[in-house]
Amino acid sequence: MSDKPHVIINYPWYQPALDRMAEICTPHVLSEAENPDAVLAEFGPKAKAICTPGLCDVALMDACPEAKLISSFGVGYDGVDIAAATARGIKVTNTPDVLNDCVADLALGLVLATRRRIVEADIYTRQGRWVSEGNFPYVHKVHSSKVGIVGLGRIGMEIAARCAAFKMEIAYHKRTKRDDVPYTFYADLVEMARDCEILIVITPGGAETNNLVNAGVINALGPDGLLVNVARGSVVDMDALIPALKEGRLGAAGLDVFPDEPNVPEALLGMTENVVLTPHVASASHDTRMAMGMVVYDNVVAHLAGKPLLTPVN
Amino acid sequence: MSDKPHVIINYPWYQPALDRMAEICTPHVLSEAENPDAVLAEFGPKAKAICTPGLCDVALMDACPEAKLISSFGVGYDGVDIAAATARGIKVTNTPDVLNDCVADLALGLVLATRRRIVEADIYTRQGRWVSEGNFPYVHKVHSSKVGIVGLGRIGMEIAARCAAFKMEIAYHKRTKRDDVPYTFYADLVEMARDCEILIVITPGGAETNNLVNAGVINALGPDGLLVNVARGSVVDMDALIPALKEGRLGAAGLDVFPDEPNVPEALLGMTENVVLTPHVASASHDTRMAMGMVVYDNVVAHLAGKPLLTPVN
Repeated sequence: MSDKPHVIINYPWYQPALDRMAEICTPHVLSEAENPDAVLAEFGPKAKAICTPGLCDVALMDACPEAKLISSFGVGYDGVDIAAATARGIKVTNTPDVLNDCVADLALGLVLATRRRIVEADIYTRQGRWVSEGNFPYVHKVHSSKVGIVGLGRIGMEIAARCAAFKMEIAYHKRTKRDDVPYTFYADLVEMARDCEILIVITPGGAETNNLVNAGVINALGPDGLLVNVARGSVVDMDALIPALKEGRLGAAGLDVFPDEPNVPEALLGMTENVVLTPHVASASHDTRMAMGMVVYDNVVAHLAGKPLLTPVN
Repeated sequence: MSDKPHVIINYPWYQPALDRMAEICTPHVLSEAENPDAVLAEFGPKAKAICTPGLCDVALMDACPEAKLISSFGVGYDGVDIAAATARGIKVTNTPDVLNDCVADLALGLVLATRRRIVEADIYTRQGRWVSEGNFPYVHKVHSSKVGIVGLGRIGMEIAARCAAFKMEIAYHKRTKRDDVPYTFYADLVEMARDCEILIVITPGGAETNNLVNAGVINALGPDGLLVNVARGSVVDMDALIPALKEGRLGAAGLDVFPDEPNVPEALLGMTENVVLTPHVASASHDTRMAMGMVVYDNVVAHLAGKPLLTPVN
């Protein structure tokens, strides 16, 4: 074993980026160990950092008392107990910005795939129904729609820029109005949903936004409305969403995230006419996953050298 | 039967738009008649116009000797024998512009669906493979790609504007260079394909562009390249495309059009990992089909009133 500093990794991420980690540390990937508890017991006390794809509880922190950095892979850190980390003098970093474009791309991909019914149209074609049943049904247009963006942070801004190219009328909901954007601000999410045809959710997760998109919002979006979620599964109330889709109170949904991943509510799996489901892949391109991994890497390098962290969140 | 002028319609289009036609004429839809030949024999000689979704041969013109207008539904008129129409003093109109946005939307929809593998990801999720097999494979990014647009007319310009919002580097191939665009011109299509990661085909159909995207172009685009066709099936050489996809010489294809619609080459139907197929739906939104139908309508109104046609093509 090398004399490089030990680093505990609870779950792996993009392998080519993980491979780079071994240049700067001795990584111990718990979920890939035969006996994770034994690995943690042996190397936790020696570890200088914890690296994680967004999940770190108090138990893991306490098993690594010398690890004063949690370098988290991903922009969302709602799965990391920040208060506990701060109380223990542990700095937490995430990987913002490098994934903005890919997440915004998928948001528009879900808008187009759901609105233009591309998944269904592909299956329709492959099943020979174009020949046997004739033309595919007409769809709702995408361009010139009224879109409401829930959370206008860095990814939300990228989504808005793409929506603008589709000539959409752009509104947003956020706790505080931005002074630097030409888009219409709504303090009231239900009101925005009522005025929009498409709602794209890209707010941070966590307790503050839990079930933010509730029955009131969903009913306001209405039978011709489309809901797209590329944020966190927790932001949309599944108990409100599923019956609304079933009863036609909501037109359609394009979902990349779910409350209990990788499990997806059974009821959604059977909805093929108005729902497109992707398995949390918004940032999952080779380039973006490598870039995210290198931010994790760079934060570990900075921490080990006692230099300022690149992307601290606490 | 009313005394409104008779109009022969060989195939129907968007029904709400067809319903409007009955306000201004007595329409005879041949493909919906029990005995089309009898209907044509009776009303062809009295017809003041032929309306068609892009298909009119000499036989139909000659069956309607008084019809001095062919009002065609759709922007492409490669299925209308323009030379024969002109020789007979028949004016032909199409429905440009009103479909630009929807076609450009679907072009980007196919780019995103194919590149981000949205159709497969949806099926993967529904089959429970996220739970049983783990994360979906990593994909190629869409943003910041080098895109080449084959045919930079009105729809091509809308596609380019959308690609710009995805931060793509934009090139185009056309017979003549445009002086009014900031995009890179290529006189040589093979050279453009070699320099691009994504090729989007939106050139007119017809003899001049038949098999324009041939083996040389496809091989130049290469194993990581994506070909999207929202133009005409005739523009892409299927005998070159299918083996290239099969052998991995071309990365992927998103196709809305095919040479022998509604038939799709059997070999494509089985390619699910790198091909997305839609059944010629680029302009098939309610709004756009209604708008296209109203251009057909307005041209018939103008013709019957002896006024200038809105969108003549000959």
